[in-house]
Amino acid sequence: MTLTVDDLIAIEEIKRLKYKYVRCLDQKRWDEIAELFVPDAVASYGGGAWAFEGRDAIVQFLRDSMGSQQFLSAHRVGQPEIDVTGPDTAKATWALMDLVLQLEFGVDIRGAAFYEDEYVKVDGEWKIKSTGYKRTYEELEPRAKDITLTAHIYDTGGRSSLNG
Amino acid sequence: MTLTVDDLIAIEEIKRLKYKYVRCLDQKRWDEIAELFVPDAVASYGGGAWAFEGRDAIVQFLRDSMGSQQFLSAHRVGQPEIDVTGPDTAKATWALMDLVLQLEFGVDIRGAAFYEDEYVKVDGEWKIKSTGYKRTYEELEPRAKDITLTAHIYDTGGRSSLNG
Amino acid sequence: MTLTVDDLIAIEEIKRLKYKYVRCLDQKRWDEIAELFVPDAVASYGGGAWAFEGRDAIVQFLRDSMGSQQFLSAHRVGQPEIDVTGPDTAKATWALMDLVLQLEFGVDIRGAAFYEDEYVKVDGEWKIKSTGYKRTYEELEPRAKDITLTAHIYDTGGRSSLNG
Repeated sequence: MTLTVDDLIAIEEIKRLKYKYVRCLDQKRWDEIAELFVPDAVASYGGGAWAFEGRDAIVQFLRDSMGSQQFLSAHRVGQPEIDVTGPDTAKATWALMDLVLQLEFGVDIRGAAFYEDEYVKVDGEWKIKSTGYKRTYEELEPRAKDITLTAHIYDTGGRSSLNG
Repeated sequence: MTLTVDDLIAIEEIKRLKYKYVRCLDQKRWDEIAELFVPDAVASYGGGAWAFEGRDAIVQFLRDSMGSQQFLSAHRVGQPEIDVTGPDTAKATWALMDLVLQLEFGVDIRGAAFYEDEYVKVDGEWKIKSTGYKRTYEELEPRAKDITLTAHIYDTGGRSSLNG
Repeated sequence: MTLTVDDLIAIEEIKRLKYKYVRCLDQKRWDEIAELFVPDAVASYGGGAWAFEGRDAIVQFLRDSMGSQQFLSAHRVGQPEIDVTGPDTAKATWALMDLVLQLEFGVDIRGAAFYEDEYVKVDGEWKIKSTGYKRTYEELEPRAKDITLTAHIYDTGGRSSLNG
């Protein structure tokens, strides 16, 4: 019932796995994201609206849907409720808030959701076996004309503007 | 001064308690929320603007204020600063960001706050003894006519729209 | 490779250090913030757009840029990826979401970024040695006329309004 030191170690390692996943998503590091899944991982985003079997299909979807430099995203996960179910298995619930500035289309997409994930430890490293979320809400709003983009990930030194 | 393993275990268990509380709030799971408080818990939201004595009064308030299916909420807590003050007692500070889409009234309420909580361990489980937050800010904005709700917690399969 | 108990303790203590930093920033507790840095700390905000050498210069910048009671801010950090690199050294990546309501100028500034920090343990306490972030995006929007500020950090009892 009570957590053990081994549980605490597993929990911290799984947190890092998830935090790297969402960071790489916003930094568009697709090759690094691929390494976080087992080959036969499955994903079900938006309550099943977008479902994929296999790491390659998952990463291809992420790349297709978020790869554009005209999409600036901030996915933030937290509130982990992680159950270590065996020496090499675990599951977790996470809260997500996400925001995608789709500059190309002039819309912002904002949402909140809860993830339900499964993890497996392979050769000493935790990997994502199954991931998916259900939305609390998701909304789309045209970007107001008076919003100024003052900095972005593709800045190189001086201030440029993707939408300017 | 330095943390012990017992502290680390208590800290992780208290994090889970809080994360379950806010998840159940957004998922409107009132019976599960009730189990997270001791019977004589007290709450003071909004710096005392809404204060309650006893678990039943707290849960009734949450149910009354957030129960409507027309209110879609995302409460996100993080930044825990948890002090384990004894084998069965602890206190903590948390940061909150919250957003409530009040579709029924056509307004969004957004805010930021810091919680100050007290916890007590009863029969091996951490419970909320006292909770409350003070606002950094809270603001209310009429929902713009051009926002489209594209998914929500009450979706069952296809895309429906609470406000459509 | 695997985390040790000492790593877990260091990780939790470093999380608290960072959480106190951002809380004090939003609560404008400049003297407490100063205690979180070593004297020769360096900071590089906005990818180097604002760079400072020495604790005093860093804290002066924070005070100058965020000190106004007309600026209500919510900085939220999470997703820590902390590497303990020695008994007294560590580094970390963090995700930031920040929002500053600049009531005085009638604008909101919103952004997302990733921090890269270095920490050092001095006399048993972890301190910030180096901090900095790069933006995923930052945007500025004039505050809509129909937003009502319903609560704020300077409320004393009743509801007052900084912008009313």
